[in-house]
Amino acid sequence: MSSAPTTAANPLRDRRDRRLPRIAGPAGLVIFGITGDLAKRKLMPAIYDLANRGLLPPSFALTGFGRRKWSTAEFAEVVHDAVREHARTPFNERTWDQLVSGFRFVQGEFGDDDAFDRLAQTVQTLDEQRGTGGNHAFYLSVPPDAFPVVLRQLARSGLSGRSAEGWRRVVIEKPFGHDLASAQELDRVVSEVFPPDSVFRIDHYLGKETVQNILALRFANQFFEPVWNAHYVDHVQITMAEDIGIGTRAGYYDGIGAARDVIQNHLLQLLALTAMEEPVSFDSDALRAEKEKILAAVTLPEDLSLHTARGQYAAGWQGGVQVRGYLEEDGIPADSNTETYAAMRLDVDTRRWAGVPFYLRAGKRLGRRVTEIAVVFKRAPHLPFDLTDTRELGQNALVIRVQPDEGVTIRFGAKVPGTAMEVRDVTMDFGYGHAFTENSPEAYERLILDVLLGDPPLFPRQKEVELSWQILDPVMEAWARSGRPETYMPGSWGPPGSNDMLALDGRAWRRP
Amino acid sequence: MSSAPTTAANPLRDRRDRRLPRIAGPAGLVIFGITGDLAKRKLMPAIYDLANRGLLPPSFALTGFGRRKWSTAEFAEVVHDAVREHARTPFNERTWDQLVSGFRFVQGEFGDDDAFDRLAQTVQTLDEQRGTGGNHAFYLSVPPDAFPVVLRQLARSGLSGRSAEGWRRVVIEKPFGHDLASAQELDRVVSEVFPPDSVFRIDHYLGKETVQNILALRFANQFFEPVWNAHYVDHVQITMAEDIGIGTRAGYYDGIGAARDVIQNHLLQLLALTAMEEPVSFDSDALRAEKEKILAAVTLPEDLSLHTARGQYAAGWQGGVQVRGYLEEDGIPADSNTETYAAMRLDVDTRRWAGVPFYLRAGKRLGRRVTEIAVVFKRAPHLPFDLTDTRELGQNALVIRVQPDEGVTIRFGAKVPGTAMEVRDVTMDFGYGHAFTENSPEAYERLILDVLLGDPPLFPRQKEVELSWQILDPVMEAWARSGRPETYMPGSWGPPGSNDMLALDGRAWRRP
Repeated sequence: MSSAPTTAANPLRDRRDRRLPRIAGPAGLVIFGITGDLAKRKLMPAIYDLANRGLLPPSFALTGFGRRKWSTAEFAEVVHDAVREHARTPFNERTWDQLVSGFRFVQGEFGDDDAFDRLAQTVQTLDEQRGTGGNHAFYLSVPPDAFPVVLRQLARSGLSGRSAEGWRRVVIEKPFGHDLASAQELDRVVSEVFPPDSVFRIDHYLGKETVQNILALRFANQFFEPVWNAHYVDHVQITMAEDIGIGTRAGYYDGIGAARDVIQNHLLQLLALTAMEEPVSFDSDALRAEKEKILAAVTLPEDLSLHTARGQYAAGWQGGVQVRGYLEEDGIPADSNTETYAAMRLDVDTRRWAGVPFYLRAGKRLGRRVTEIAVVFKRAPHLPFDLTDTRELGQNALVIRVQPDEGVTIRFGAKVPGTAMEVRDVTMDFGYGHAFTENSPEAYERLILDVLLGDPPLFPRQKEVELSWQILDPVMEAWARSGRPETYMPGSWGPPGSNDMLALDGRAWRRP
Repeated sequence: MSSAPTTAANPLRDRRDRRLPRIAGPAGLVIFGITGDLAKRKLMPAIYDLANRGLLPPSFALTGFGRRKWSTAEFAEVVHDAVREHARTPFNERTWDQLVSGFRFVQGEFGDDDAFDRLAQTVQTLDEQRGTGGNHAFYLSVPPDAFPVVLRQLARSGLSGRSAEGWRRVVIEKPFGHDLASAQELDRVVSEVFPPDSVFRIDHYLGKETVQNILALRFANQFFEPVWNAHYVDHVQITMAEDIGIGTRAGYYDGIGAARDVIQNHLLQLLALTAMEEPVSFDSDALRAEKEKILAAVTLPEDLSLHTARGQYAAGWQGGVQVRGYLEEDGIPADSNTETYAAMRLDVDTRRWAGVPFYLRAGKRLGRRVTEIAVVFKRAPHLPFDLTDTRELGQNALVIRVQPDEGVTIRFGAKVPGTAMEVRDVTMDFGYGHAFTENSPEAYERLILDVLLGDPPLFPRQKEVELSWQILDPVMEAWARSGRPETYMPGSWGPPGSNDMLALDGRAWRRP
C-alpha cells in the first residue's frame, strides 16, 4: 500500500515543499498600458528578474499593446533599456536572448476592433509556435475608466474565453473604484468577462517581503503571539508617510486623496494581516477568509469629527528646498478639498482586539518616507521601581518596518549603566538587509509569478475590496460634508487635528 | 497639614529618586589582603572611580593592612599604579589628591595583636582627624582559612564593636564554605563578631550591569513577562564558560572544582534572578526573599548520574597554542578528581516553572569566554506553513548576555526573501555598549558603594548561601562516589556526558 492516497485525501493541504520557489508553467502575458511608467519601472524589470531567477518557462511570451507605432524590435529595445535601468539581478545575455524571442508588440487603440483581432491572432500564433499552451494573462495597467472598453474587446475577440487547453486571467491594479458603489460597478464589468477566480487584483504592497513576514513573525514563532491581543496591546499605529508631494499625478490624485489612494487598500490590508487570527493554512482561500473576518469586524467611532483628521500640505520649505502647496500644484483646482493627509481611528470588534484602537495615517510631504506597523504595548501593570524612576519610561513597542529599511524593531526598557536604578528605553533591531544575503525580490516579481501560477494568496478578493469601502465610505461622506481640510507644513507630521485625535484618547503618534 | 506623615507611614517604600546615584556618607574602609591581586586589579581602581564619580565623601579613608613593610607613601604609590592601570575613569589630580590624603597603611601579621591595636588606633585617629564618623567597613580579601583569626582580632581590638556614633561592617568574598556544614561553620565564626545585617557577602557577578538588567528587563516591561513561564518556556540554559585553564590558582582550585567555584554562587544567583517572582520592591529584604523562595524550590533529578556531567580538560591545542591538561598543571596532583567542567539539570518546583528544566554548566578551557542566560521557548503550537518549511526551524530564544559584550539577543523565525515561503532563524540584538554612552561602572564599584551605603540588595544572605549548598551537596557527594570525571579537549564544549544529559531530555546545548 502506498501512502499516496492519504496525501490525496487531504486536499486542503498542499504538501509540496514551499521552501522551493515554484516555476511558472507555459504562459503568455499581455500588458495594456505598456508605454506607461509602471510597465517600464516595475513590470518589465520584474519579468526579466523572474526569467533570470529561472522562474519563467522557456516558452514564456510577453506581448505589449499600445498606441505607439513600434516594431517588435523597437519594443524589445524599450524593455531592454528598462531592464538595464531597473532590474535587480545582473544582466545575462542568455536570459535576455531567450526572453526577447518571446516578445511581441501589437499596435492599436482600445476602441480598435482590428487591433484586438490582431492581438488574438498573435496569442494564437504564440500557442502554436512558442508553446504558451493556451495560457494567457491580461495585465490592465491602464486607468480604471479604460477597463470597460478593454474588457469588452477581450470578450469580443474571444481572448477572455476559456479554451479547453488553457487558462485566461485578468490582472487589474488599484484603485478598485472610489467608493463601494463604483467598486461594485467595476466588479460587475469585470465579472461579465472573467469568472471571479480568474480576476487578480494587485495591491503591490502585499508583494513586499515585510508584509509577508508579518505572517511568518506571528505564526512561525512562539514569542510574539501570546502578547498579540488586547490583554497586552494598548493600541496599534499604522503609518504610510511620503516625503514627496503629488508630483505629476494631479489628474489621478485630485478628487481621490490620501484615504482612497492608500488607506482603503494598503493600510487596511496591513491592518488585516496584523489583526487576523491564524489561518488554517497559507492557501489563498484560508488567508483571505481571515482577512475578511477582520475587515468585517472593523468599526468606526461614532463622532468622526473627533476621531479622524485630514489635511492639505501648504507651501513651505522641505529639506532645504522651497516646495509648492497642494493647491498651487499644476492641475489642482484652487478650491480643491482633496486631502493629502488622512488619519482615522478604527476599532476591531473581536475577542482578541476589543478596546484596542488601530490608528491609521497616510500622507504626502511628511517628515520622511516610511511605512510601518507599530504594535504599542500597555505599560507593565506594576513597577517595583520607584515611580520617579520610570515616569518617563515609554511603552514597549514592536515595530514592523515595511519600508524603507525593512525589518523589525522592539523597544523596551533597560537599566541605564550606573550605580543607580534608572531605566531607559532602548531598541533592538532586526534588518532584512543585514540578516539575509538573498536578493529580495521586488513586489511585482512575486505578484506576476503568482498570476502565472494561479496562486493568489496575496491578491485581495472582491469581498475584501467591498468591505474596505464599507469602512471608508462613511469617513469620506463626513469629510465631504465638513468643508475644507486643515493645512500642514511640508516636512511636518500632519495637521494639528491629527495630534488632537490621539490626545483625546490620551495617546500620541510615534515619531517614526 | 503637610504630606510628610503620609510618606513616613509607608516605611516599606523608599521614595527617593533612585535614578540619582546615592553618595556614601563619612566612612573608612580597611582592606585585609591589600597586596593581593583582587585589591590591585579591582578594589583600588573601583575606589578611585567612585571618588572620581563624586560618590565618596571628602572624608573617605582607605586603610591597607598587610605584611609588607610599606610606608603610607609607598602604599599610595601602589594604589596609584593600580589606578593608572585599571581605573575606568580618567585620572584626575584633584580627585587623587583628596583621596590619597585619606590613605593609611598598617603593617602586620593577622596573628599580631600589636598590629591590630595599631589598626584600632589608626581608625580612631581617622574618626578624630578626618571625620570618618565612627563608620568603618572591613574588607576580608583573604583566604577563608584566615577569616577566623582576622575576625577574632577585630573583636579583640574592639574594631568590630558597634560604637554609639557609627557602624561597623565586614565584607567577605566567596567561597562561603565548600559545603553546607562548612558554610554554617563560617557563618558561626562571623556571627560571633558581627550581627547578620553587618555582614556583606560579595558575589561580584551580582554587581554586573547585565545581572541587574535582568530585573529591569523582566519587571519594567510588559513584553517579556507574559511569556516568562512554563506555558511558553521550554527550558533555560545558564552558561558560564571560560577559555582559560586554572592558571596559577591550583592551590585554590583543586578540591573545589567548577561546581563549588561558580555554580554554587554565580550560576544559582542567575537562576534565582531569572526565575523569581516580582519582588514587592527593590529593597534588599524584598529582593532576597524572592531569591530565597526560588532556591528553596529547586530540586535535583533523582538519578544524578544521568542528569549531571563533569569533566577535566585534557592536554591539547587551543587557539593555535599547545596547552597542558588539568592533571599536568603545576600544583595539581596526578590523581585529582576535581572537575573543571560541571553541568546539571535543576527543576524549580513552582507554579510558574513546573516542568521547565534549568540546565546549568560551567567550565574552563571551553570554546570561548561567555556567560549567558538563554530562555528557550517552546515551538509554536501549530504552524500554518507546511511541515517541510519549518522542520529545521529552531525555537525562539531570549538570551541575556552577561559577559562579554553585555546585552540581549532574541532569536526568532523570519521569512527568507524570495518568492517561496521559507522561514529561517534570525536574531535581533541589543548591546549595552552601543545603546548607552554612559560609562558602565565596574561590578566592584557598585558593591563597595553598597557596603558604604549599607544597602545590600545585591549581596546574598546567609540563608541563600545555605540553600545553594543544599542544592549542590548531593551532587558533590554523588560525584565523590563515582570516581574519575570524564575528560574533554581544550576548546571543546565539555565532555560527552554533557551532551548525553540534554539528549536524554530531547534537547541540546546552545552553541553560545
